Amino acid sequence: MKEGEKILLYGKREFLVEYRPGEEVHTHLGKIILKEGLEYGDLLRSSTGAEFVVLKPSLADLMKDVRRKTTIIYPKDAGVMLLEAGVESGSTVGEAGTGSGALTLLLSRIVGREGKVISFEARKEFIDLALENLRQSPFQNYEIIHRDVVKDGFGEFRFDALFIDLPEPWEAVSRAREAILPGGAWVSLSPNMEQMKKTALTLREEGFLRIRSFEILRREMVVRSFGVRPKEVMHSHTGYITVARRGK
Amino acid sequence: MKEGEKILLYGKREFLVEYRPGEEVHTHLGKIILKEGLEYGDLLRSSTGAEFVVLKPSLADLMKDVRRKTTIIYPKDAGVMLLEAGVESGSTVGEAGTGSGALTLLLSRIVGREGKVISFEARKEFIDLALENLRQSPFQNYEIIHRDVVKDGFGEFRFDALFIDLPEPWEAVSRAREAILPGGAWVSLSPNMEQMKKTALTLREEGFLRIRSFEILRREMVVRSFGVRPKEVMHSHTGYITVARRGK
Amino acid sequence: MKEGEKILLYGKREFLVEYRPGEEVHTHLGKIILKEGLEYGDLLRSSTGAEFVVLKPSLADLMKDVRRKTTIIYPKDAGVMLLEAGVESGSTVGEAGTGSGALTLLLSRIVGREGKVISFEARKEFIDLALENLRQSPFQNYEIIHRDVVKDGFGEFRFDALFIDLPEPWEAVSRAREAILPGGAWVSLSPNMEQMKKTALTLREEGFLRIRSFEILRREMVVRSFGVRPKEVMHSHTGYITVARRGK
Amino acid sequence: MKEGEKILLYGKREFLVEYRPGEEVHTHLGKIILKEGLEYGDLLRSSTGAEFVVLKPSLADLMKDVRRKTTIIYPKDAGVMLLEAGVESGSTVGEAGTGSGALTLLLSRIVGREGKVISFEARKEFIDLALENLRQSPFQNYEIIHRDVVKDGFGEFRFDALFIDLPEPWEAVSRAREAILPGGAWVSLSPNMEQMKKTALTLREEGFLRIRSFEILRREMVVRSFGVRPKEVMHSHTGYITVARRGK
Repeated sequence: MKEGEKILLYGKREFLVEYRPGEEVHTHLGKIILKEGLEYGDLLRSSTGAEFVVLKPSLADLMKDVRRKTTIIYPKDAGVMLLEAGVESGSTVGEAGTGSGALTLLLSRIVGREGKVISFEARKEFIDLALENLRQSPFQNYEIIHRDVVKDGFGEFRFDALFIDLPEPWEAVSRAREAILPGGAWVSLSPNMEQMKKTALTLREEGFLRIRSFEILRREMVVRSFGVRPKEVMHSHTGYITVARRGK
Repeated sequence: MKEGEKILLYGKREFLVEYRPGEEVHTHLGKIILKEGLEYGDLLRSSTGAEFVVLKPSLADLMKDVRRKTTIIYPKDAGVMLLEAGVESGSTVGEAGTGSGALTLLLSRIVGREGKVISFEARKEFIDLALENLRQSPFQNYEIIHRDVVKDGFGEFRFDALFIDLPEPWEAVSRAREAILPGGAWVSLSPNMEQMKKTALTLREEGFLRIRSFEILRREMVVRSFGVRPKEVMHSHTGYITVARRGK
Repeated sequence: MKEGEKILLYGKREFLVEYRPGEEVHTHLGKIILKEGLEYGDLLRSSTGAEFVVLKPSLADLMKDVRRKTTIIYPKDAGVMLLEAGVESGSTVGEAGTGSGALTLLLSRIVGREGKVISFEARKEFIDLALENLRQSPFQNYEIIHRDVVKDGFGEFRFDALFIDLPEPWEAVSRAREAILPGGAWVSLSPNMEQMKKTALTLREEGFLRIRSFEILRREMVVRSFGVRPKEVMHSHTGYITVARRGK
Repeated sequence: MKEGEKILLYGKREFLVEYRPGEEVHTHLGKIILKEGLEYGDLLRSSTGAEFVVLKPSLADLMKDVRRKTTIIYPKDAGVMLLEAGVESGSTVGEAGTGSGALTLLLSRIVGREGKVISFEARKEFIDLALENLRQSPFQNYEIIHRDVVKDGFGEFRFDALFIDLPEPWEAVSRAREAILPGGAWVSLSPNMEQMKKTALTLREEGFLRIRSFEILRREMVVRSFGVRPKEVMHSHTGYITVARRGK
């Protein structure tokens, strides 16, 4: 476990904190000392006696944690987006709209040492935040570029897959067409039906293929020995995902 | 594009075929010649005049294609399973129940050159099929071991995450407990509620933490300029996913 | 059981037929003789030996049966529409768009002897079909009027609740405003999001209150002693329901 | 509008109150005077200036309002239950488990003057509460009987449809078999999968036909001129409905 790495303290409540050997974490369940040589699975006890197990945060946890000022991408959506876009170890992927870097971090950790993530952000104030969040990637495979891609395009970059996280994704379609490799994937996510519609129709006009829009619902179950049922309240909507492929 | 690699011919219908330069593909829409030096985005015309664009299959496509004699894992489920389990470039993951190798292939392509996938299969007759399907991975990072893990355990292997694709996942819990690294993840998928329940309760008994069961629904949208709506028919159930973490 | 009444023959397959004492029903499972004095619960055997139990069709069955040339309203939607609209025994309800009379029949059987259903249909060719389907109501509490309500309005009629089954419901909003009693309910159903949106926004502009749009999903379960799970395929979308109330 | 009738005061918030001419209603938005001769659609102003329109509560509103100490039946479920059970004006229906009378009230208002609702409740303390709630029915067509139907059965009563609202519905199956008319309907609702399963399997053992279990989801939409989407949070689970028919 390296200094600065995020760790998950799992007990009655969960805390995702940076590991600073010897430092204290203050929670409403008491102070927790992060001893030197901490290992995953270790049991810590807070000053009030509450117990916490040290876990490695999953990609899902890290994404939820990312300090955000922008809309968030949920693991239920991000997972299928990766697979539909064919992102894998070694891929070269682009992102328009870095935001707080949640998806950038995920992409960085998936494409790995031989992959590359180029993320574009028009709003300068987000870039520092994203770079800080990206310190949770073990790979130096990412770059954040300060540029408005709708106006200025993606330059010489060419991507296996391009993730669009802009409020008006359709504005980026013709720019994206140049930057996605033949056969490569477009992926965007929009909360409203009208945005999704306009995006899908623009993709069709610009000659994209295999255009699909869908949403993903995650239904948590309550499991007890005396009875199983879906949870009564569900986060039912995050956004509509649109995926498409560039032809030649 | 390498010989033997799967390519997707996209037109009125889709065909996923192996690329054999110079060979013909016979479809009900006519013969299609796979010329030498084929590139993604190329347009091919069949003997009946039908047009096809050559696309690179996504991980989602490859998973669906895997010749299977076993239950299948869908991209909607596989994506969130990866993220919840923290699988990324470089991870060491285990799998109990190789089956036709669909998930093995996905894991291999995600963990990449620096990762490792060890998959266990008790039924000898599946191993050849899985190995053939695994030829679609560009990485030599996998191993299939002929072993009944419920009876004989995982030996000296230790995993960041372990995927259980057995009809009775609960039988593998105590074996899994030894093989998952502290803080590492258990992931299983079962079609029936009773299987999911027994799995989750057994995980609790054996001291696993942060146990969650859920299902993922994917709702396709129909997008036309004159009207947007969800598709009328939906594949509504594949299985219940259970994820958990090992403590110390 | 009266002559001409619909009965449900329930066996390996279901047949909804009119009861004609002494007549034969021809099915691909053989001929079934509908003997005189037939009673609910009776067991009939076809000429090929297939067994059928005679059941009374529910309102849900009758609605599905209605010979239709128009879009259909499903029981899952109709039930909540009734309740949200406050339809009960004795209500006076209107309907714009009789179509094949499926909803008219339901309304007639719910409002009963002391209630009233006035249904408007602009397309003359539907009226005979609807009247034939309405013979399955035991009540003479309905009237079908040949009129285009968008052009010509609802005249002197005043309704506790008004059901709009027109392709462009928003065109009927100002007419409906006159015909719904103060505090009464508007209910419409549209397959596409755009229709629902335009309807809801027009209702707001015209001063309607408590406007809500929603959709209803029905998830069938597969129940076997060895395992319970949702059915794999689901009819996931019929339409968006919009309900609203007239103020003064 | 009659004294004692429930009316809905609709403004920024909603209040469902009994109409007592001349009396005041105290809310956190101020006092509202219920003037004599109040009519639906009237606009009232509270002492703090908040505006409220007087609406007639729908059956859905009345059900939600019923003062309850028991589990609740939601309109989304109740509507389809009525239709699947064939309840209409004039039906004779039974109910095991009156509880606070929410479903009893709905049934009373649907079956009307020529119908009949017989509801059984084993716990004496619920009966007064239910009778008070039932004052919102305009019909004197109901009876609440203090009896444990699992132990003592339904006596001489015979029903077109029987609604079971007991924690262990399967215990009532053989009693119900005697009390449901041939061809008539069983309807029950249970929160947990195990209850639903045991109920459905017991119905099958006891010779019931056409047994179906399902759940109903209601997805609220957010409609604004600039964007339509499903609501982010959804009440995703109430219970599993089981319907079945008695043969002879």
